[in-house]
Amino acid sequence: MSVSVVSLNEKFSKINVQNEYRIIAQMNNYYFKLVRMNREFIWHAHPDTDETFFVVEGELEIALRAKTLRLKKDDFVVIPKGIEHKPKSIGECKLILIEPAGTLNTGNAGGDLTDTREEWI
Amino acid sequence: MSVSVVSLNEKFSKINVQNEYRIIAQMNNYYFKLVRMNREFIWHAHPDTDETFFVVEGELEIALRAKTLRLKKDDFVVIPKGIEHKPKSIGECKLILIEPAGTLNTGNAGGDLTDTREEWI
Repeated sequence: MSVSVVSLNEKFSKINVQNEYRIIAQMNNYYFKLVRMNREFIWHAHPDTDETFFVVEGELEIALRAKTLRLKKDDFVVIPKGIEHKPKSIGECKLILIEPAGTLNTGNAGGDLTDTREEWI
Repeated sequence: MSVSVVSLNEKFSKINVQNEYRIIAQMNNYYFKLVRMNREFIWHAHPDTDETFFVVEGELEIALRAKTLRLKKDDFVVIPKGIEHKPKSIGECKLILIEPAGTLNTGNAGGDLTDTREEWI
């Protein structure tokens, strides 16, 4: 039986690097990923899917073309498919991302920050 | 622009009843639901979908046929489709459920506890 409890605290304690994604669970075709984000990301959109950002610790700003969202601990937001956004952490921000497997971090923008690795912890 | 930040604390503060589900967000065809659970639920399975239980506060036990899972704050579990499970809160447990819209709380079991309401807060 492979069903097991996932502890966010335990999983975060295993992540020693910033700005890399780690998969911690799968629900149907969706991944739950953790990241210790410490950067300003690039403008991009995901043409085919919504994407969820959940703040576990720290603060996150997500710029949209029309306004800037500000998230703190225990806040989350669903960015609808096709909506351009630019996430930026305020210092380090611990995040859960929920999105379909295969969703590219840079969406339609591509570029050097594109990260196609799928590393589980 | 309808994209907005969802605060778990603010949403929970609006829930005055136990054991009723409230929808707080949608990602593609998935709902994020909150519940202040205070009961032992029934054995059931969801034949067509996985289901995620995330504990925000309190403690939750989920009996499977092979073992019992124990979750506390910041723990979560994905119950695979088709796996029989019986959730039981230890006192009140504040939970986030993530599952496709239309997923029945009682799954394949039916019965008096079936709740088909879709109430947003």
